[in-house]
Amino acid sequence: MNTRRDFLQKLAASAIAFPSITSFAAATVPVVGCNTPYDGPVLRVAIMGLGSYGTRVAEAMQSCKKAKLVGAISGTPAKLKNWQAKYNIPEKNCYNYENFDAVRNNPDIDAVYVITPNALHHDQVIRVAKAGKHAICEKPMAVNAKEGQEMVDACKQAGVKLLVGYRMHFEPHTLEVIRMRKAGQFGTIRFFQGLTGFTIGDPTQWRLNKQLSGGGSLMDIGIYSINGSRYMVGEDPVWVTAQETKTDKVKFKEGVDETIQFQLGFPSGAVASCLSTYNMNNLDKFFLDGTGGWAEMWPSTGYGPIKGRTHLGELNQPIVTHQTLQMDEMSGILLAGEQPVVPVDGAEAVKDLKVIDGIYASVASGKRVDLQL
Amino acid sequence: MNTRRDFLQKLAASAIAFPSITSFAAATVPVVGCNTPYDGPVLRVAIMGLGSYGTRVAEAMQSCKKAKLVGAISGTPAKLKNWQAKYNIPEKNCYNYENFDAVRNNPDIDAVYVITPNALHHDQVIRVAKAGKHAICEKPMAVNAKEGQEMVDACKQAGVKLLVGYRMHFEPHTLEVIRMRKAGQFGTIRFFQGLTGFTIGDPTQWRLNKQLSGGGSLMDIGIYSINGSRYMVGEDPVWVTAQETKTDKVKFKEGVDETIQFQLGFPSGAVASCLSTYNMNNLDKFFLDGTGGWAEMWPSTGYGPIKGRTHLGELNQPIVTHQTLQMDEMSGILLAGEQPVVPVDGAEAVKDLKVIDGIYASVASGKRVDLQL
Repeated sequence: MNTRRDFLQKLAASAIAFPSITSFAAATVPVVGCNTPYDGPVLRVAIMGLGSYGTRVAEAMQSCKKAKLVGAISGTPAKLKNWQAKYNIPEKNCYNYENFDAVRNNPDIDAVYVITPNALHHDQVIRVAKAGKHAICEKPMAVNAKEGQEMVDACKQAGVKLLVGYRMHFEPHTLEVIRMRKAGQFGTIRFFQGLTGFTIGDPTQWRLNKQLSGGGSLMDIGIYSINGSRYMVGEDPVWVTAQETKTDKVKFKEGVDETIQFQLGFPSGAVASCLSTYNMNNLDKFFLDGTGGWAEMWPSTGYGPIKGRTHLGELNQPIVTHQTLQMDEMSGILLAGEQPVVPVDGAEAVKDLKVIDGIYASVASGKRVDLQL
Repeated sequence: MNTRRDFLQKLAASAIAFPSITSFAAATVPVVGCNTPYDGPVLRVAIMGLGSYGTRVAEAMQSCKKAKLVGAISGTPAKLKNWQAKYNIPEKNCYNYENFDAVRNNPDIDAVYVITPNALHHDQVIRVAKAGKHAICEKPMAVNAKEGQEMVDACKQAGVKLLVGYRMHFEPHTLEVIRMRKAGQFGTIRFFQGLTGFTIGDPTQWRLNKQLSGGGSLMDIGIYSINGSRYMVGEDPVWVTAQETKTDKVKFKEGVDETIQFQLGFPSGAVASCLSTYNMNNLDKFFLDGTGGWAEMWPSTGYGPIKGRTHLGELNQPIVTHQTLQMDEMSGILLAGEQPVVPVDGAEAVKDLKVIDGIYASVASGKRVDLQL
C-alpha cells in the first residue's frame, strides 16, 4: 500500500528542484524596516515539510518581527534533529506525519505553515484545522477547487484562519502596479500577459509525479500567471481556453503538463494571454496594457528582486525578502484575527483552483470553458 | 451596382488611419549608405493607390538608388495631378482603375506597387501581371489563401515576379535577430510571442469595411505577428487555435475582428502566443525565447526606429527608412530576375494567408485547426 510516508520518502530522496534562473535566486537583502524596534505580539509558527522551500521560509523567518519559527513537522527524523539545532526548536514542538494532530495540545504553537507536495495539502490542512491551529498553506492550496473548498469549509468549521502563500501580494513593486491600476494610471485595462516557467531538472522529483503534484507546470508555476492575471487586471475571469504542448512524454507523464498556453476573458472585455511551462528558460514576465499606459515586470514573481517599469518609468520600490515580509504580514493578519485586506485567504485560492480546473478541462475538450469564480 | 470606383470613392472620403503610437511614427532618418554613388540599373515603378501609405512609399522612394517612382494609378484625378507635380511624374504614366491595363504598352514602367484596400489586391495584381509588369503588393497580399494562390499562379503564367511588402525582412534589427537565431545564439527556440495592435480611429474607414478589408485587425496588423512568428522561430506552424473578443459591435461589424488571440504550434514543439487588436495601445512587441537566450523587440514592426535587446545586450543596428530600403532591395531582386533570398515573394505570402484562414476557421469552430503551409 502506498502511504504518505512512501511519498515523503521518495520526496526526501529527490531534490526539490527550483528554478535556476536568476529571478528565482535567493534574495539576501534585508526586509524593509527590519531594524524598527517591535515589542508587539508574535505568532508562533511550525513548518510542516522541511524541504527546499520550507528551509527557505525558515531562513527568512529569522528576520521576522511578528512571526517566530517554533516548531517543525517532518517524516525524516534526521531533518527534525537538524532543525532543532539550527533554529533552536525544542524537541517537544517537533512532530511527524503520523502524530502531528497532537499539536492540538501544544499551547506553544499558534499556526502551521504547510509546505509539502501539493496533493498532500488537503488532508494536512484539514488535520491542522481540526487541531485548532491556524493554517498557512503553500500554493497551490490544493489540486482542484473541490478539495480547496473542503479545506476552506474545514477551517471555517474549526474556527481557524486559512491563508495561502501568495507572497506577491506583499511585494512592493507588485503593490505599486496594483495601486497605479486602481488609481486609473493605466486607463481602462485591456490586456494582460503572464509568462511563467522554467526548465525543470531531476525527472524523479515529486513535482513530476502526478500523485504528489496533482499536475505539472500549471500547478507549480502557471498558477502565478493565473493569480497574477487577477491582481493585475483587477477582475476575475469569466472564460478560459487552453492548449497543451508536450515534447517529452517520458519526463512529463500522463497528467503532468509540460507547457500550457491559456487565455482568459474578463467581464470588461479585457483578455489575458498566458503561458505555463517546465520546458523554457527566461520566463517570468508580466505585461499589463491599458488605454492610458502599461506596466511590465520581469522578473515578476521570482524570489529575487522584482524589476518593473511602466509608461512613466522604472518602478523603484524597496527590495525585500519575500518570505520574511509574507510571514510578518500574515502573522499580523492572524494575530488581529481579521479578514486580510489583501487576497491571500483560502477563498481567493479556490478561485485560482477553479481556473486551473477550467484550464485542464479546456485542454481535454479543446473547447472554451466558462468560469464562475 | 457596387463598383470598384464606389469602393474607392468611399476610400477617398475617409482617412486611411494609421497607428498613432510612437512606434508607427514616420522615421525621417536616412537609409544606410544612401550617399554611396550608384550608376547601376534602376527599376521604374508606378504606385497604384495614392492614399496615406502610398504617399509614404512615394516619399521614401525619393531617397532610393535602385528604384524610381515614375507612374501613378488612382481613381481620383486630383490626386494624379498632385503627384505629377510633386514627384515629377509625366502625365502619360498616369492611369485610373479602368484603363491601367494599358500599362502593358508603356515601356517606361517596369513594375507596379499595389497599395489599395486588401480586397482589391487580387484582381489588380492579376491585371498588372497580365499587362506584363512585375507586381509588388502591399500586405495582406489577399484576403484568403485561395485568392493569394491565384495571384501567384497568374504572375507565374505571365512571366512576371510577385513580391509582397514585407518590409521587416530588410530591417537591420530584425535581420540581426534572425542571424543570431540561425547561428544558434538563442539555443533551441521554444517560444515566440507577438503582440500587434493599435486603437483604430475613424469608424468609416475602409479598414473597418469587410468588403474592402476582408476582415479586421488580423488582416491589417495581426499579420505582422503571423509573419513574425515564422521568421523569428524559423519554422512554419502546423496548427493554430484562436479566440475572438469583441467589445464594440457597432464599430467592428460582422466579419471585422476587433481582437483575436491566436496560438501556433511548430514542428519542433515550439509554440507561439499572439494577439492582434484594433482596440489596445502600446502593442508592437515580439519576444523570442530559446534554451540559450532570448530576444525582445519593442517596437518590433512599426515604421519608426525598431528597438530590441537580447540576453547579450541592446541591439544596435542602423536606423533606416523601411520603405526606402525595401524598395531599393526589391528593385535589386526584380532587376536581377532571381528568386529573392529573403522570403518576400507571393508564395511566402500565401503561407501567411493560410494561417489567417486557419485563425478565422478556429474562431468560427472553436477548435484547433491543422495547417499545411
